[in-house]
Amino acid sequence: MSTRRRDIAGVARRRHPPGTAPGVVRPPAEAAVSRVTLIRYGGDAYVERDLPSIEALDEYALHDGVTWVNVDGLADAALIVALGRRFGLHDLALEDVVNVHQRPKLERYGDHLFVVMRMPHPGTAFDAEQVSLFIGDGFVLSFQERDGDCFDAVRGRIREQRGRLWQSRSDYLGYTLLDAITDSYFPVLEAYGERLDAIEERVLDGADIDATREIHLVRRELLAIRRAVWPMREVFNTFARGDLPEVTDTTLPYLRDCYDHVSQLIDIIEIYREVATGLVETHLSSVSMRTNEIMKVLTIIATIFIPLGTIAGIYGMNFDPEASPWNMPELSWRFGYPFALGVMAAVAGGLLLWFHRRGWLGGRRRRGR
Amino acid sequence: MSTRRRDIAGVARRRHPPGTAPGVVRPPAEAAVSRVTLIRYGGDAYVERDLPSIEALDEYALHDGVTWVNVDGLADAALIVALGRRFGLHDLALEDVVNVHQRPKLERYGDHLFVVMRMPHPGTAFDAEQVSLFIGDGFVLSFQERDGDCFDAVRGRIREQRGRLWQSRSDYLGYTLLDAITDSYFPVLEAYGERLDAIEERVLDGADIDATREIHLVRRELLAIRRAVWPMREVFNTFARGDLPEVTDTTLPYLRDCYDHVSQLIDIIEIYREVATGLVETHLSSVSMRTNEIMKVLTIIATIFIPLGTIAGIYGMNFDPEASPWNMPELSWRFGYPFALGVMAAVAGGLLLWFHRRGWLGGRRRRGR
Amino acid sequence: MSTRRRDIAGVARRRHPPGTAPGVVRPPAEAAVSRVTLIRYGGDAYVERDLPSIEALDEYALHDGVTWVNVDGLADAALIVALGRRFGLHDLALEDVVNVHQRPKLERYGDHLFVVMRMPHPGTAFDAEQVSLFIGDGFVLSFQERDGDCFDAVRGRIREQRGRLWQSRSDYLGYTLLDAITDSYFPVLEAYGERLDAIEERVLDGADIDATREIHLVRRELLAIRRAVWPMREVFNTFARGDLPEVTDTTLPYLRDCYDHVSQLIDIIEIYREVATGLVETHLSSVSMRTNEIMKVLTIIATIFIPLGTIAGIYGMNFDPEASPWNMPELSWRFGYPFALGVMAAVAGGLLLWFHRRGWLGGRRRRGR
Amino acid sequence: MSTRRRDIAGVARRRHPPGTAPGVVRPPAEAAVSRVTLIRYGGDAYVERDLPSIEALDEYALHDGVTWVNVDGLADAALIVALGRRFGLHDLALEDVVNVHQRPKLERYGDHLFVVMRMPHPGTAFDAEQVSLFIGDGFVLSFQERDGDCFDAVRGRIREQRGRLWQSRSDYLGYTLLDAITDSYFPVLEAYGERLDAIEERVLDGADIDATREIHLVRRELLAIRRAVWPMREVFNTFARGDLPEVTDTTLPYLRDCYDHVSQLIDIIEIYREVATGLVETHLSSVSMRTNEIMKVLTIIATIFIPLGTIAGIYGMNFDPEASPWNMPELSWRFGYPFALGVMAAVAGGLLLWFHRRGWLGGRRRRGR
Amino acid sequence: MSTRRRDIAGVARRRHPPGTAPGVVRPPAEAAVSRVTLIRYGGDAYVERDLPSIEALDEYALHDGVTWVNVDGLADAALIVALGRRFGLHDLALEDVVNVHQRPKLERYGDHLFVVMRMPHPGTAFDAEQVSLFIGDGFVLSFQERDGDCFDAVRGRIREQRGRLWQSRSDYLGYTLLDAITDSYFPVLEAYGERLDAIEERVLDGADIDATREIHLVRRELLAIRRAVWPMREVFNTFARGDLPEVTDTTLPYLRDCYDHVSQLIDIIEIYREVATGLVETHLSSVSMRTNEIMKVLTIIATIFIPLGTIAGIYGMNFDPEASPWNMPELSWRFGYPFALGVMAAVAGGLLLWFHRRGWLGGRRRRGR
Repeated sequence: MSTRRRDIAGVARRRHPPGTAPGVVRPPAEAAVSRVTLIRYGGDAYVERDLPSIEALDEYALHDGVTWVNVDGLADAALIVALGRRFGLHDLALEDVVNVHQRPKLERYGDHLFVVMRMPHPGTAFDAEQVSLFIGDGFVLSFQERDGDCFDAVRGRIREQRGRLWQSRSDYLGYTLLDAITDSYFPVLEAYGERLDAIEERVLDGADIDATREIHLVRRELLAIRRAVWPMREVFNTFARGDLPEVTDTTLPYLRDCYDHVSQLIDIIEIYREVATGLVETHLSSVSMRTNEIMKVLTIIATIFIPLGTIAGIYGMNFDPEASPWNMPELSWRFGYPFALGVMAAVAGGLLLWFHRRGWLGGRRRRGR
Repeated sequence: MSTRRRDIAGVARRRHPPGTAPGVVRPPAEAAVSRVTLIRYGGDAYVERDLPSIEALDEYALHDGVTWVNVDGLADAALIVALGRRFGLHDLALEDVVNVHQRPKLERYGDHLFVVMRMPHPGTAFDAEQVSLFIGDGFVLSFQERDGDCFDAVRGRIREQRGRLWQSRSDYLGYTLLDAITDSYFPVLEAYGERLDAIEERVLDGADIDATREIHLVRRELLAIRRAVWPMREVFNTFARGDLPEVTDTTLPYLRDCYDHVSQLIDIIEIYREVATGLVETHLSSVSMRTNEIMKVLTIIATIFIPLGTIAGIYGMNFDPEASPWNMPELSWRFGYPFALGVMAAVAGGLLLWFHRRGWLGGRRRRGR
Repeated sequence: MSTRRRDIAGVARRRHPPGTAPGVVRPPAEAAVSRVTLIRYGGDAYVERDLPSIEALDEYALHDGVTWVNVDGLADAALIVALGRRFGLHDLALEDVVNVHQRPKLERYGDHLFVVMRMPHPGTAFDAEQVSLFIGDGFVLSFQERDGDCFDAVRGRIREQRGRLWQSRSDYLGYTLLDAITDSYFPVLEAYGERLDAIEERVLDGADIDATREIHLVRRELLAIRRAVWPMREVFNTFARGDLPEVTDTTLPYLRDCYDHVSQLIDIIEIYREVATGLVETHLSSVSMRTNEIMKVLTIIATIFIPLGTIAGIYGMNFDPEASPWNMPELSWRFGYPFALGVMAAVAGGLLLWFHRRGWLGGRRRRGR
Repeated sequence: MSTRRRDIAGVARRRHPPGTAPGVVRPPAEAAVSRVTLIRYGGDAYVERDLPSIEALDEYALHDGVTWVNVDGLADAALIVALGRRFGLHDLALEDVVNVHQRPKLERYGDHLFVVMRMPHPGTAFDAEQVSLFIGDGFVLSFQERDGDCFDAVRGRIREQRGRLWQSRSDYLGYTLLDAITDSYFPVLEAYGERLDAIEERVLDGADIDATREIHLVRRELLAIRRAVWPMREVFNTFARGDLPEVTDTTLPYLRDCYDHVSQLIDIIEIYREVATGLVETHLSSVSMRTNEIMKVLTIIATIFIPLGTIAGIYGMNFDPEASPWNMPELSWRFGYPFALGVMAAVAGGLLLWFHRRGWLGGRRRRGR
Repeated sequence: MSTRRRDIAGVARRRHPPGTAPGVVRPPAEAAVSRVTLIRYGGDAYVERDLPSIEALDEYALHDGVTWVNVDGLADAALIVALGRRFGLHDLALEDVVNVHQRPKLERYGDHLFVVMRMPHPGTAFDAEQVSLFIGDGFVLSFQERDGDCFDAVRGRIREQRGRLWQSRSDYLGYTLLDAITDSYFPVLEAYGERLDAIEERVLDGADIDATREIHLVRRELLAIRRAVWPMREVFNTFARGDLPEVTDTTLPYLRDCYDHVSQLIDIIEIYREVATGLVETHLSSVSMRTNEIMKVLTIIATIFIPLGTIAGIYGMNFDPEASPWNMPELSWRFGYPFALGVMAAVAGGLLLWFHRRGWLGGRRRRGR
């Protein structure tokens, strides 16, 4: 329940009252404690450590390699503002970092790029945290809502201290992180594909009542994923146009590759959405068919037996045959009873024949309900 | 009822008969009494007071700060025209000020900008008044349909007599007001999100009849909100292109930020609309499922008992066994009664078996109705 | 019926067989008799009179004011051709004047503009006649299918012999007529809004069978209105671009205002269409709910009483208790009858309990049917 | 049946296996025998005759008028290739001539234009043949799948040996043919409009079962027409842009007129499609309403009489009143029978009252079924 | 089942974990063994042979003809990388070759083009393998997932050692392969058209339960085909723009022809999808109609016979006529029995008349169920 409520109403939630000043960094309500990690690589040095405070960063003046500062948890507004001042970030960008309901976007402020993405977490319900990246000359800053991300493989590749990542500039690290986020949508979508497969199997085999509920939930989560993925296309499109001075030419084909991946994601989401919509219709149609089948059974049985019951009822009436020869003379006929049974058989037979002609008795065999 | 009627038919209402001259300021039918407030700030002076008449404005010649004249209530046409003359506003713009069914728009007249917005009021039904802004060199004029707005926080920030707002020019005040209006849609939408959450819970748990009605009303109000929000995207897009001389470069990123917020609003509205549409389908599908369940119960009971009743009816017939040995000899059989009960049990058992094979008796447990 | 038929099939009707020469003026089948009216104003003269023939126009050579020739009724092909020759109109434009199923459009021929519009007439069904305007230097020609238009207020403003209209050139008269046509859609749409309001009230209060029919008719008429209004946006957009030499700069903001009005009309039409579509779904859903309710009543009653009837039927069988002790010994039990009634009460109570547990007896109170 | 099959599966049919060489002229499977007709006009000469062979064309060297060679039937590949060689046509264009499932298109090859259109034939089902036009300097070539076209009026206008057609160049003949094809869609669509009118009348008056089937067929044929008409807009748009050297300036307004006509056709098709979709919904809704009505009748009757039958059944039980005073003492009461009838009347009256309160007995009078 | 699961969930499957380095060639899970074939043609030489290893390629230095290296099966990563190095292919392109869930696309890397297509295989379910083409100066490289393709006709045309293909450069071979792939969609779609035809016939003749299931499956496969075909339009559009230096001017019209074919494919897919959607609605509507029919039969029979049964039941009650003259005096009436039968006949007749007036007995004859 609570998960669901967060999904729909939550998308419209903003933290500060309308009319307050922009550019103010106010952490979200349930922000996790901030933890700062530094990775320096390239050139001659490799450093990876947790930073107890922002001042500890002073030891590591910018050098000719790449400095990646990652912040997990947005509770510490002072730290975020301090980082912003140190790297010359714009107030509005910092506000967006903590205002965690942003759409993915790419903005240029002065000499650095500001990219917002939504990073999906594995799990049954779609759950994406906001990741904010600042890509500048020689540094990448990343802000995440909480611990746990899809960057471990990236860290592993840096630790190897060789390869293209080690030799490239900060824009390539930015690409690598964006690519990791993009790629992490594929397993998420695959899981939805499998849920749809399972629902489809149940709907096609003979729909049950829960299908309605589950299709609805899948559709709603696909809406949420779509909201997170669609704007990414625009982000990578801006990258791929190649007129951002922060992006070197060698990184461009990789960003175009990301653009392709996002296009694939969008394709998949749209296909899933159409399949889900089709399943609703198929389910509804299938329920109607089964109601029709049930009605047919009821109608055949009732239509045959109700007249028979009425005939039997007539001959169960207690009119006194002795009072008058008009009163139920059949009761004393020699073949009165066989005659009555014969009438019943004729009525039943006639109705069966009529049903047969309408095709209601057709031998179609269905395991449906 | 009256609320609803205003919503649909009201959007098409215009005040003057077709063919009358344009540019005439004719207040709307139930316009509130006009009340003029002046705020001057920036530079060396700070003034905030109610203006009894437009002449009182003469005391406050334009200075090097910002003059914000706010008019609540559009009943006083003379006042509006006088203000228009004083600030050199175009007739058509003034007509739009009092013609309160405008779509949000941005127009340039001479050396000032004219912006129309719709400002939502808190409440159960969506209710937005028209706010018209004139942003010129050193002044901002705002016209509202009635008392009460989302600008109190802005006024508070001016009263602090410091900060970016105090130091900026009139375009930044214009941005601040537009931003306040934009942001005031978020709590409105959040309320709809919560209504949808509640409806969804009821629909998924076992639909009840009011869901239909409520989804319809939510959908209609989302249509109205969408009509108010969609054109705002175009307004801020024009702002953000950066070729308006009235807008300074430092204000531009803030207006782009507004554009982002409007994009978020549109995203949210579209998601809500899709969720609401999905709920209608889910509800319909769920009602069909429950009708199917009910039919199954009826069919099982009727199909089993109607034949039994017919059999009982047959042995309740009054054919005279004495009239002929053909007449109901079973009645005098030693085991006639047990035989009849046995036939009934066999029929009932056979039908139950058949239903079981069709899966109609399946132990699916549902709290549905 | 006939109204309806004209609406759907009529939109595809053209007067001449495929392959015939273009530019031929052939009046429509049931064209009204042509009546020519002349209004001259501006400069020093004011004339308003009916013209018995086209030659009478010669008395009024073009002067420095504006000449407005209005033709009501298109039956007189010769007159139309003569007017065309006199004002130098293109054959194709004249053909379009009498071919009264045009979409609204704006075309430039030589030194004049040709504008086609559809002017709605008040009434229960949407009914729009074609109005063709030629706007040239010093003159405006207007052709209408029949008597009656929305230009009376315009004529009144000319007769006042002052104001902007009197002082402006022919393009402003053209704008004034187009604005009158545009504005005349608002009351038409408001009437549809009220119809939708009434339908909605009935649907939400408990749907009745006519809703289906009425929603369908409203939807179809909205389609027709939409067809008349959508292309007007393109017309005013072309005007507002400001590169037509026939349009003076002072008239431009007024035409942009028209563009805004058309945008509002389109908004309203789309909202009405969506509301109507939503009403269909809501109605369908509500009918399903009520069928479900009815089924529930039937099922509860039948499921309770049919087994009771069967039990009663069993004890109504005529097996002869004297023929054997196995034959219906209950009939002679001391408490046979109370026992039978008790079994019935137990069955009925059990079923009621089961229905109660399924929630079918829930005290929901609905005035629905 | 066969008609239907051709419609859906047929649109995907191509004649040659994938991978074979392009530009090969292979007539379609059931191509009609080719028949060549020549019309020369303009300048000083007028000739109209059938050509027995392509060599006969040599008698008529290109002159200063216009030569129109029309080919009915595509069976004679050699003839088509010979014509192509003589007029310098591109292989791919010739392949398209015989590959009769082309979309309408306009292509420029060297110094001539190649236009493909689909020409509708009158009849109950939509049936359009491909017409391929080559428009060059002084000549027009037209290829049709079979005999019979909408060009007779054009031929008549040529035979008059005067008028604009006689005096114009080949591009005007090309326009005239394209215009004839465009206009021939209007009566076709009008027929569909009338079918929709008839269906609508039946659906609104009380739906019958065939409506479903017919709406489906109309919708499918509208899809086919739309496929033939939509690309024509692009064709005439390219023409109307005015940068084709083959098209003279005097012909341009006529081609723009064609563009208008195609826009009208598309409007009509979309309106019909929306009306048809609306009819499906209306029909479904109306069927649901009538099922609801039927259910109500069944429920009222069954709910009233089943309890009465059960009461009657109880007093028809044969418990022996002599065996015990507990056994059916009512049977010997003085007013037992009136009492039983009274109970029945009370039950029936109570239920009627309940139904009345629910509004199920409402006096709404409907001729529905 | 397994086929179905692959279809939906499979589209979201990617092989490597998010965050791993780009440009790594890792064959797909169940890749077929790689087999390399070489065809050299044009100029003076013709060679066609299988290559045991990549080194064998050294014998065939690039010459003035065209070298076509085709790889079936992607299991041998080393071979693919070696080929890539030899022909100077980009890492990302090679990664895409083995990452077999690409959308069709066209990319330029250095001096060669990289084209990805999806080639359909004949069969009941839609099944397309990825084909990757590198088109460079004098060579074409093609990579296929497995054996079997639609290129046999192309190989045959090369073996003829004449014709346009033999004389053209590598871009024409590239076009030929792309054209073969494009054309191979036509028979695939035709098969779906036939399936839709068959479904439509069944739905229109009287829907059966499987239609729901089959329409759903067809719709889902059309979604998959659409995903494969839509991006091809963009590919050929880029080709047809004519600014790729790798494409000679003589090949351009052929690529434009391909573009036309893809447009046709898209038209067909969209028509099929609309037909399928229409079939769902038609089916649902038809099932509703038949349920309505069944309900009518049940209602007529039950409504007539249940009251009759109740009347019979009343006269079957055992009230003792001797106990009182009030107790069932009808039983001893002279015409009691005929009176009772008459009442029954009157009730039945009245109901039949009422049904007749409602049109429920209408003689419409339907073979529906």
